[in-house]
Amino acid sequence: MSDFFKDIPAITYEGPDSDNDFAFRHYNPDEMVMGKSLKDHLRFAAAYWHSFAWPGGDPFGGQTFERPWFGDTMELARLKADVAFEMFQILGVPYYCFHDVDVRPEGNSFDENTRALREIVDYFEEKQAATGVKLLWGTANLFSNRRFMAGAATNPDPDVFAFSAATVKTCMDATMQLGGENYVLWGGREGYETLLNTDMGRERAHAGRFLQMVVDYKHKIGFDGAILIEPKPQEPTKHQYDYDVATVYGFLKEFGLEGEVKVNVEQGHAILAGHSFEHELAMARSLGIFGSIDMNRNDYQSGWDTDQFPNNVPEMALAYYEVLRAGGFTTGGTNFDAKLRRQSLDPEDLILAHVGGMDACAAGLKAAAAMLEDGKLEAARDARYAGWDSDAAKAMLSSDLASIADRVSAEGINPQPRSGRQERLENLVNRYL
Amino acid sequence: MSDFFKDIPAITYEGPDSDNDFAFRHYNPDEMVMGKSLKDHLRFAAAYWHSFAWPGGDPFGGQTFERPWFGDTMELARLKADVAFEMFQILGVPYYCFHDVDVRPEGNSFDENTRALREIVDYFEEKQAATGVKLLWGTANLFSNRRFMAGAATNPDPDVFAFSAATVKTCMDATMQLGGENYVLWGGREGYETLLNTDMGRERAHAGRFLQMVVDYKHKIGFDGAILIEPKPQEPTKHQYDYDVATVYGFLKEFGLEGEVKVNVEQGHAILAGHSFEHELAMARSLGIFGSIDMNRNDYQSGWDTDQFPNNVPEMALAYYEVLRAGGFTTGGTNFDAKLRRQSLDPEDLILAHVGGMDACAAGLKAAAAMLEDGKLEAARDARYAGWDSDAAKAMLSSDLASIADRVSAEGINPQPRSGRQERLENLVNRYL
Amino acid sequence: MSDFFKDIPAITYEGPDSDNDFAFRHYNPDEMVMGKSLKDHLRFAAAYWHSFAWPGGDPFGGQTFERPWFGDTMELARLKADVAFEMFQILGVPYYCFHDVDVRPEGNSFDENTRALREIVDYFEEKQAATGVKLLWGTANLFSNRRFMAGAATNPDPDVFAFSAATVKTCMDATMQLGGENYVLWGGREGYETLLNTDMGRERAHAGRFLQMVVDYKHKIGFDGAILIEPKPQEPTKHQYDYDVATVYGFLKEFGLEGEVKVNVEQGHAILAGHSFEHELAMARSLGIFGSIDMNRNDYQSGWDTDQFPNNVPEMALAYYEVLRAGGFTTGGTNFDAKLRRQSLDPEDLILAHVGGMDACAAGLKAAAAMLEDGKLEAARDARYAGWDSDAAKAMLSSDLASIADRVSAEGINPQPRSGRQERLENLVNRYL
Amino acid sequence: MSDFFKDIPAITYEGPDSDNDFAFRHYNPDEMVMGKSLKDHLRFAAAYWHSFAWPGGDPFGGQTFERPWFGDTMELARLKADVAFEMFQILGVPYYCFHDVDVRPEGNSFDENTRALREIVDYFEEKQAATGVKLLWGTANLFSNRRFMAGAATNPDPDVFAFSAATVKTCMDATMQLGGENYVLWGGREGYETLLNTDMGRERAHAGRFLQMVVDYKHKIGFDGAILIEPKPQEPTKHQYDYDVATVYGFLKEFGLEGEVKVNVEQGHAILAGHSFEHELAMARSLGIFGSIDMNRNDYQSGWDTDQFPNNVPEMALAYYEVLRAGGFTTGGTNFDAKLRRQSLDPEDLILAHVGGMDACAAGLKAAAAMLEDGKLEAARDARYAGWDSDAAKAMLSSDLASIADRVSAEGINPQPRSGRQERLENLVNRYL
Ligand SMILES: [Co+2]
Ligand SMILES: [Co+2]
Ligand SMILES: [Co+2]
Ligand SMILES: [Co+2]
Ligand SMILES: [Co+2]
Ligand SMILES: [Co+2]
Ligand SMILES: [Co+2]
Ligand SMILES: [Co+2]
Repeated sequence: MSDFFKDIPAITYEGPDSDNDFAFRHYNPDEMVMGKSLKDHLRFAAAYWHSFAWPGGDPFGGQTFERPWFGDTMELARLKADVAFEMFQILGVPYYCFHDVDVRPEGNSFDENTRALREIVDYFEEKQAATGVKLLWGTANLFSNRRFMAGAATNPDPDVFAFSAATVKTCMDATMQLGGENYVLWGGREGYETLLNTDMGRERAHAGRFLQMVVDYKHKIGFDGAILIEPKPQEPTKHQYDYDVATVYGFLKEFGLEGEVKVNVEQGHAILAGHSFEHELAMARSLGIFGSIDMNRNDYQSGWDTDQFPNNVPEMALAYYEVLRAGGFTTGGTNFDAKLRRQSLDPEDLILAHVGGMDACAAGLKAAAAMLEDGKLEAARDARYAGWDSDAAKAMLSSDLASIADRVSAEGINPQPRSGRQERLENLVNRYL
Repeated sequence: MSDFFKDIPAITYEGPDSDNDFAFRHYNPDEMVMGKSLKDHLRFAAAYWHSFAWPGGDPFGGQTFERPWFGDTMELARLKADVAFEMFQILGVPYYCFHDVDVRPEGNSFDENTRALREIVDYFEEKQAATGVKLLWGTANLFSNRRFMAGAATNPDPDVFAFSAATVKTCMDATMQLGGENYVLWGGREGYETLLNTDMGRERAHAGRFLQMVVDYKHKIGFDGAILIEPKPQEPTKHQYDYDVATVYGFLKEFGLEGEVKVNVEQGHAILAGHSFEHELAMARSLGIFGSIDMNRNDYQSGWDTDQFPNNVPEMALAYYEVLRAGGFTTGGTNFDAKLRRQSLDPEDLILAHVGGMDACAAGLKAAAAMLEDGKLEAARDARYAGWDSDAAKAMLSSDLASIADRVSAEGINPQPRSGRQERLENLVNRYL
Repeated sequence: MSDFFKDIPAITYEGPDSDNDFAFRHYNPDEMVMGKSLKDHLRFAAAYWHSFAWPGGDPFGGQTFERPWFGDTMELARLKADVAFEMFQILGVPYYCFHDVDVRPEGNSFDENTRALREIVDYFEEKQAATGVKLLWGTANLFSNRRFMAGAATNPDPDVFAFSAATVKTCMDATMQLGGENYVLWGGREGYETLLNTDMGRERAHAGRFLQMVVDYKHKIGFDGAILIEPKPQEPTKHQYDYDVATVYGFLKEFGLEGEVKVNVEQGHAILAGHSFEHELAMARSLGIFGSIDMNRNDYQSGWDTDQFPNNVPEMALAYYEVLRAGGFTTGGTNFDAKLRRQSLDPEDLILAHVGGMDACAAGLKAAAAMLEDGKLEAARDARYAGWDSDAAKAMLSSDLASIADRVSAEGINPQPRSGRQERLENLVNRYL
Repeated sequence: MSDFFKDIPAITYEGPDSDNDFAFRHYNPDEMVMGKSLKDHLRFAAAYWHSFAWPGGDPFGGQTFERPWFGDTMELARLKADVAFEMFQILGVPYYCFHDVDVRPEGNSFDENTRALREIVDYFEEKQAATGVKLLWGTANLFSNRRFMAGAATNPDPDVFAFSAATVKTCMDATMQLGGENYVLWGGREGYETLLNTDMGRERAHAGRFLQMVVDYKHKIGFDGAILIEPKPQEPTKHQYDYDVATVYGFLKEFGLEGEVKVNVEQGHAILAGHSFEHELAMARSLGIFGSIDMNRNDYQSGWDTDQFPNNVPEMALAYYEVLRAGGFTTGGTNFDAKLRRQSLDPEDLILAHVGGMDACAAGLKAAAAMLEDGKLEAARDARYAGWDSDAAKAMLSSDLASIADRVSAEGINPQPRSGRQERLENLVNRYL
């Protein structure tokens, strides 16, 4: 045991009336909701990068966090892992996620990096076995090192494509070894800073080919997790190809991969793309590519990705409602791709931020489940479209413009609008909160 | 001749030093650029709706324009047509565009509307013959009447689908009769105000089926123009399904229509979707669905569609550069889906707004052509990707992750970043302006 | 009694478990909170314009609502008033607000408008007496008629200034006669569409002089309500001078009116200006100009003023927390400057939208009050600044740079950052919700 | 001479037809415009921080630039200064600007920092004498070090206030010693991350007192440059108190400092605050607080401060038009607070970025001057307000609501709107470009 979290107890459920900061008031992991425990519904994961690797810098200021494990040695990497797994246990999160660079020291070559990654993955394997904590997903950081500044799969330099492909292979191997349930690709540098120097057609073709290789490799090694793309419209890059869920879908269709790849949807990225979180989830569901979520929010008044811990339960209820409508998570889960505010310096802050986020998720999911079980919202939705269930309406859908026009003329069809009842439905939602 | 534009002469080219407000300083229709006249490059069209049907209202104020043709009779519709064609001739625009509701009085039934439309289309036919002005595209207004408030093709009420389909049929017939070169669909109400009452899957399916019917009808009647979708992310609707070019592409792929339908890209809609205009054009080009443009801008500080006449030549040069890279217009053209500011009350304002827009387009296109002919920008772009032209790079693209990883390891590949030279390229562009 | 709301009962409090759409679940008007009834805390007002005058149009579509009182006669104006006061009574709102043009037919001259306004004001006086409903504020619509298209007080035409001044006088008279508790000025056209035709210095000077006249007239007639400016950054105008609370404060200071005029803060306008609602409220409080609120929200994904009924209780709790910290309302109140979605056609929608909004306000206020009474948040805030309570810190504030520098050097001051504890405080807030 | 810029010649004016990347095509320093040389009009300054101290990182990636002077020793600081002054001379910029931390190694105490700063200031003094390059403004970096994470003047910890005050004193001393013509304050951390932990009233009071101390110290030491505040609405902080020009004005008025302090306006910050650059300049002019400009742009599609070199000449012409209307710069100038894109790795990029920016400024200023000298735009503006020049209009301004209302009634005033002529004016502007 490190002493980083000393005096911080394991967090347990104490119910809504608890006055204890270090307790759950809504997240009772064993509580059964719609026939499944909250733990199995929510499938919480903590993110290694923000919690253990990020130093607290922003574009106008440097490091604020002073962590005993900061540094670039294997020993410190093991200390970091020790503390990370301690946090997972304090919180009772069943899962975690990581990029290669979060967990290993940065070496001077691909081989050095690979060796270091393997060593730490072996260490993780032991810790997983010892704690029962599992890997929700692994991923490769193909955006921080300066070699990736102009893209990874879409880099103008084929050697960067090669380096990226090799790195993804090692990260998929690591994910496989650790029993990860998904493998995620976020293309933070796959895009452009200026169209003036960019061959968009070529870059998209390379990205498509790269993704095909990832899918092929998954099958080759027998990885039975899901491959997930995490959409984001911009930041760090002016334009990113995986703009939003609908754009990723078009990309998958272009390369025939819509049956092989799903999406990991983040609230903050939805906002940056001009969507609500529930929109992106509903879109993924209706396109059949819903995979997993990053449950961290953006600030509505900030134009960049703030990756804050979530706390607005009504919004989260709408998000989990879409998750439940999609059948809930299979391989996916609720990852906190969330970072502490850089002024939240204390170990306690790290624990409490997760506690608050987990509690808000639990409250949101329970409201969503109640709403779904109650059925009033779905009944109202179905009623609105009931006209389409008639044989005549179905027949019209398989007819053609001319015969429809004839019928409109013959029958004097002159449709009258009906209330959309938005406020009434919004009131209804508020009942479950 | 009406006297609406009395004392306003036909606009002619007088060159950059002209001090005459009522003259072109850049648009010389017969000037040859890259082997084609400016007239044939730009293919200008005026929009009937903003110039002749819009009363000047905004969400907080009513009508400001007082036009002698405002009203809902066939006689006034003919007066409107007279003035419109007078404007087309004063400006020398070779094309115009219209919705059904712009040109005919609103009737009480589908049949009344159809009859009125046919009558005015016959009148247009005569006027086209008399003036030589042609129809760039026709379209149906499926968003203003209250019957469409919850969508047209995506309405929960199948009767609205029917009414919409019938209306599109009549508008396609009108477009065919008038020799229109394209038929456009803008789905301003195809989307949702709230997810709570929306069945997105069903609505998308209906939209796909509707579009297929449009394509089928095009083939049935032998219309050889292009079918175009005009993307817009929102406004009036909170979310519109045709969000942006990439989203439309995914939609077309989903329904197998990517070979049948192209896009009409508007600068203002690009901005609302978080893109630059040139981005949307480059995307359309690289996806093979570039069709036509609406060359009206938004105000960067306003969060809604301002549909202003364009005037920033450097931005327009970048847009036309993408048009030229796409091979220029075939059936498409440069439509001004632009409205006067509501304080621009005078007939002169209507003429001068178009004159300024056309001149800015001409200046932009000439700069773009010079840049393309000079070849420096394309040479720099090609040089940046030259590594991919090697056999080794091509071979890598058809290989797999594991063998790439082996090679990276064996060869110790450690790519070094190279300058993206963005500022240098921006300087280069400025040379042509 | 009109039959517009027939079959809709007066809304009463039934508690959180009620399954009745037409009941309050949180708003019990007589419930005592911090020593005051909810009714007196919230001081709800309904807005005449959105609920009774707005036809449901948007920039791309016309009227959707069909109300029996639409039209431009005095008889219809009285019918409208009848229905309005019926709604106020059904809802139990103690207040309402109106513009002149909402309540009277539009005449052809100032005198006609004044006569019509007086007549309807007499009618309102009777209805107020009969129902006990009171006027929260009156205001003049100086933005819808085309004469105001280029501004009212800031119009380039002095005759428009005159017409505006005269109109405000009649509206202040009406407000005085009706016992209104505030008079509001919203400068929707006080700003510019383009800087190119605008003399900002002159316009600001005129606006300042106009406001001084309003204040003078208030004192002359002995109106003892508050004069309030409602800030909004833009829409309909590209830039509006009353951009946000801080800008209005600077304007008031420039003209020496900061002791005479306060602000009416709207959530939607805060959002358009890049602020949270609670920010604008905290700013008004700390500048000593907090007056009243318009409790209607914007959609975070739409770039214009959506004026939706509020429903996110956590956000509303933060807003009411600032209201309570400001000492609660004195002359001000909670106005719903909120409009139905244009698809919400039914009389029931109008009632339910208000019911939901009022309930959410009550829930928000109760949470805010609990948080304030509990004192934990304020204790944490005070503790953070406790260092400033020392005599040394106070002395430093009255010293100078050089002596501070000497002390920093002499004492080797090297401050260490302390955690800002944001997540912990966010968790704390969530406890009260 | 270092060899960093080896082979790069001093940039000279070669005229618009030059094909030489390393030449000015518009900036001829000695060209006379409105009776003043371009050099004296534009008063260009290069920014030390972006060009010499910034390593190329962004929120998702680390250092991309590898500069021989990176490191934290006095020797490297001198090398950095050598290269910086070499760049100033290559470009022929007459001015530069710096923060303390840009130019000195970071020490462990205030005294160490002060000593290091003094040493490098002495070195700068020699270099200024040797090269003729002058200091446009100095400033203190009170935002990067973790001690400032919660603010400088507005920090909850009085020791940080003290450290900040002491630091500003040393930076004002440095600026004085170097003959700087202005001293700038940018409050990047003066604001809040969350209202929950913030005492806005107290923080504003401290900020006001701090500014008063700065003004007092200026007078005490006889610094005859201007004190400038640089507004920015947000980033890095969620909300910054110096939101925009109008907000800063209100702040100055609150503390009685509007005669002592002016603004340094940056295009990128204007954009983030929802304004155009020309708006902020016109506002500063009309409030009498225009000081200087940071001529770097933001990307309209990115929600953060991109600090790019400017290149859109039409926009810059509008900005310089306001500068010229304000009488041109007195102590102020055109600072490039602009950073290379992080992929622009080469020394040449640093030079060419400035060359392009300077050329675009020169083109913009020349267009602005031509427009102002020609007088058509100002004549149109004056004509629009001509009604206000009458005695009757002036008399009205000193009257009151009641007598205006009487006159409106008596004279039957019924103003008719007149065209705002926006498009015509936009066309006019384009003539000068
Ligand atoms: Co994120
Ligand atoms: Co994420
Ligand atoms: Co548009
Ligand atoms: Co358009
Ligand atoms: Co509003
Ligand atoms: Co309001
Ligand atoms: Co900046
Ligand atoms: Co700056």
